[in-house]
Amino acid sequence: MVVESLASSSAYGYPLLVKQIFLSSRATASDREIVYQGRRFGYPDFFDRVAQLAQALAELGVRPGDTVAVMDWDSHRYLEAFFAVPMMGAVLQTVNVRLSPDQIAYTLNDAEAGVLLIHDDFVPLLTAIRDRLRAVRRVVSLTDAHDGGRFGPDGEYEALLARARPAFDFPDLDEGTRATTFYTTGTTGEPKGVHFSHRQLVLHTLAASSALGSPVAQGRLHRDDVYMPMTPMFHVHAWGLPYVATLLGLRQIYPGRYAPEVLLRLIRDEGVTFSHCVPTILHMLLNHPDAAETDLSACKLIIGGSALPQGLARAALDRGIDVFTGYGMSETCPILTLAQLRGGDADPEAQLRDRTRTGYALPLVQLRVVDDDLRDVPGDGVSVGEIVVRAPWLTQGYLGKPEASEALWRGGWLHTGDIGTLDARGMLTVTDRLKDVIKTGGEWVSSLALEDVISRHPAVTEVAVVAASDARWGERPLPLVVLKPGQTADESAIRAHVQAAVDAGVLSRFAVPDRVRFVDSLPRTSVGKLNKRAMREAL
Amino acid sequence: MVVESLASSSAYGYPLLVKQIFLSSRATASDREIVYQGRRFGYPDFFDRVAQLAQALAELGVRPGDTVAVMDWDSHRYLEAFFAVPMMGAVLQTVNVRLSPDQIAYTLNDAEAGVLLIHDDFVPLLTAIRDRLRAVRRVVSLTDAHDGGRFGPDGEYEALLARARPAFDFPDLDEGTRATTFYTTGTTGEPKGVHFSHRQLVLHTLAASSALGSPVAQGRLHRDDVYMPMTPMFHVHAWGLPYVATLLGLRQIYPGRYAPEVLLRLIRDEGVTFSHCVPTILHMLLNHPDAAETDLSACKLIIGGSALPQGLARAALDRGIDVFTGYGMSETCPILTLAQLRGGDADPEAQLRDRTRTGYALPLVQLRVVDDDLRDVPGDGVSVGEIVVRAPWLTQGYLGKPEASEALWRGGWLHTGDIGTLDARGMLTVTDRLKDVIKTGGEWVSSLALEDVISRHPAVTEVAVVAASDARWGERPLPLVVLKPGQTADESAIRAHVQAAVDAGVLSRFAVPDRVRFVDSLPRTSVGKLNKRAMREAL
Repeated sequence: MVVESLASSSAYGYPLLVKQIFLSSRATASDREIVYQGRRFGYPDFFDRVAQLAQALAELGVRPGDTVAVMDWDSHRYLEAFFAVPMMGAVLQTVNVRLSPDQIAYTLNDAEAGVLLIHDDFVPLLTAIRDRLRAVRRVVSLTDAHDGGRFGPDGEYEALLARARPAFDFPDLDEGTRATTFYTTGTTGEPKGVHFSHRQLVLHTLAASSALGSPVAQGRLHRDDVYMPMTPMFHVHAWGLPYVATLLGLRQIYPGRYAPEVLLRLIRDEGVTFSHCVPTILHMLLNHPDAAETDLSACKLIIGGSALPQGLARAALDRGIDVFTGYGMSETCPILTLAQLRGGDADPEAQLRDRTRTGYALPLVQLRVVDDDLRDVPGDGVSVGEIVVRAPWLTQGYLGKPEASEALWRGGWLHTGDIGTLDARGMLTVTDRLKDVIKTGGEWVSSLALEDVISRHPAVTEVAVVAASDARWGERPLPLVVLKPGQTADESAIRAHVQAAVDAGVLSRFAVPDRVRFVDSLPRTSVGKLNKRAMREAL
Repeated sequence: MVVESLASSSAYGYPLLVKQIFLSSRATASDREIVYQGRRFGYPDFFDRVAQLAQALAELGVRPGDTVAVMDWDSHRYLEAFFAVPMMGAVLQTVNVRLSPDQIAYTLNDAEAGVLLIHDDFVPLLTAIRDRLRAVRRVVSLTDAHDGGRFGPDGEYEALLARARPAFDFPDLDEGTRATTFYTTGTTGEPKGVHFSHRQLVLHTLAASSALGSPVAQGRLHRDDVYMPMTPMFHVHAWGLPYVATLLGLRQIYPGRYAPEVLLRLIRDEGVTFSHCVPTILHMLLNHPDAAETDLSACKLIIGGSALPQGLARAALDRGIDVFTGYGMSETCPILTLAQLRGGDADPEAQLRDRTRTGYALPLVQLRVVDDDLRDVPGDGVSVGEIVVRAPWLTQGYLGKPEASEALWRGGWLHTGDIGTLDARGMLTVTDRLKDVIKTGGEWVSSLALEDVISRHPAVTEVAVVAASDARWGERPLPLVVLKPGQTADESAIRAHVQAAVDAGVLSRFAVPDRVRFVDSLPRTSVGKLNKRAMREAL
């Protein structure tokens, strides 16, 4: 092999750095703005503010390799930190503010965060855990109050920026330098820290940009889209879309704390056309009273975090929303697939099904569905196995957890813990979490497939299926059902509805539940996913 | 800095390899085809053939690090070599078949090509230089004849593939491994070898894909486009577009030897929608008798290699072609900029001008216009300087030419040798080659700007402006003018036309030529560019 050794000594080797995402938009986005709570920043302002933030952090003692943690709602400030902190060679810790105080203390200590940028709203939480934080030396206040905020032993963000020069010499780092870290709670054990390098973020941004740009019409992102996150910025970099939006120089809207009426108002007033969220948020938006008076027909919406039920997808499509699934996880930066429609099948029902499948691999993503010995199962759309992946942007391990890291990367492939199928088109469909699949009488029943069927019963608004222990069958599926307001249905109605799907060949006969439990609401995790662990424990 | 060291020992580091472009389309393009002279290969066939080619080359003794040279017209075979040769760890040499026999012998020897894949048409040329080739051990025949070809001491391509198993274990290489090499002749001295690594090709492909996907409508490439190169595959990887087309899984048409009637027929019969060429090819297509009966209104066409004259752009737009400039050079893989329209200016004349400017930087391209001391000149659209660049896909030097390599990378920036301006939007406009600018009476006159004005004279079909030595002024601009058939114009008419542009403030008064020379045609280089060196020498 000829590994390059003929370079001119003056040739620039060009490491892949977050800085270059920033510089790319700097060249061409001078006419666009970034909006937060009525404040409007042109990209030139944004560029200055990123330099000022780096300068201010340096004056607070932040050095390359230090960790800077952020606790904020989705804001222009968070976007500035997405760039300034990694670009100065420090590590950005995006703290999940929905975790318990104990968990937050654990993650700040585990990441050895030395500086904390924290919104007023979380000061009570900080006060409760302050004496347990081992590394935090400096606390900077983030506020939306016009009087400069109530808290800030080391200053308030805007005041610090105002004092800093809008110039910072962002160094050329090794592209393997860690840029971001955050913690995934999963459903068991203590939070695990994942981490991403500059190279990984740049490659995720480029590949996501390529994938989102290539469709003819459905599921595409273009330069005149207006972007707003509806997945928190602390959650896997808001799926990496703020980096994509900045690379392309899009107009960007940051919504602060999520409230459906605020999100709907911003969509309407700021002309938002591109966003992403979990199904729960979409459900909230569509069912909010303000939704009726909001034109959603220009919206393109990636749904992830949980499977997109067909009923919810249909409701969104009825409002003109271009809704489709994206798939990934905290360990994967996160995007692995997008359920963009491919030509050939114009049948609306087939298109609806494809939008709610899991999607096609992004460029450079190698996707396999394998058996326990890492052998591919047939790509026939039926054979089920675990989904394992390779991509240039997967966390290389969990911080300080070598055994969990080895398990994640068993055999050189990242194990998603999801089971699913690949079809001849290359379309992936996740059928269940490996740990949520229900093993009953020697058969596997997919909790997701059963949920999908029950969700289409006219009286049902939400459903979760968990495994209940059973002396005879090992496990049996137990649906927890939330009925629509004013609607009624009993166990036999739900059973009959499932039986019809069995008769139609959609489900195995083992899927018909013996019991159905009707509940007022379903427990969710901090990021809005159904918390099946909590459900199982409550059985 | 935290350079990643916490990786699980099982984690896959994911080098950036040409193999992954291939694997990406493998997952999702199963329904598309690659077409050459009526032969149609599904992508699954293409995947098999790439493996068979690697197998066949291995059986001919090709090992990692060896160079495999190709002399062919644009074909499915060439595309197969684009992938198979680098993917097996060997280096693909794309031989410019328009060079002189002496130059071809030089480049094959300089690259130490051990295996040569050669089309029938070039066998007489090979025969003439065979005894001078120092490294070539094996010669494989490429033929379009149905009888298996006339020549091939080591076999014929299709016969070798037919004998090879469609399976090859493409290794995981170091991403810095050299993938391709070819020679740029410039206008002086012996050919200089540039070279690109796997990493560089992957990043060029991703960034070009992102840039081509992001426009709202004008200048965009999408998954349902049908791609055909009209810049030869030996010329900077046909501008890298075959890699982009394969990544996106597009239908691809390969036209063989370029003939305007063939290109027009393929555009019509195969529904080609996306291509790229030099202005000369566009000029030939538009002026061919078959053009009148060919619908070109679905075509998107990147023009590069030389400036796109406004008159030619207007003629293309009148036919419904979405024509716009791309910019780069052999040293840059090649794409640096694309003249895609940005929102805001709907005036057709302003849009026409922007299409013929040089363009906006691709993602990750850092573009500067600098003075002799590498200081930025103002980005005001007026101040002129040399264009210097950084990008993750620039050749790191010329093979075996350390002095030229140092000059290319002087100060850590690649010197394009072009002069131009950047405006406040980030739009680059090349005004001239550094060596073609005319220094007259202490003023710089851009030969391109003067050509652009003269090209708009109604009697003129083509024009080139070169510097003529002048005792008093140092140099004076001398236009060489080709008139349209049946049209007449004399020197004073051309002078008056230029004077009008001077009066309008478009050109300096030093630009008005003292003399005009009328010629039947203009000399061109092997890749179709105006050969100003030959013109100056013929003065």
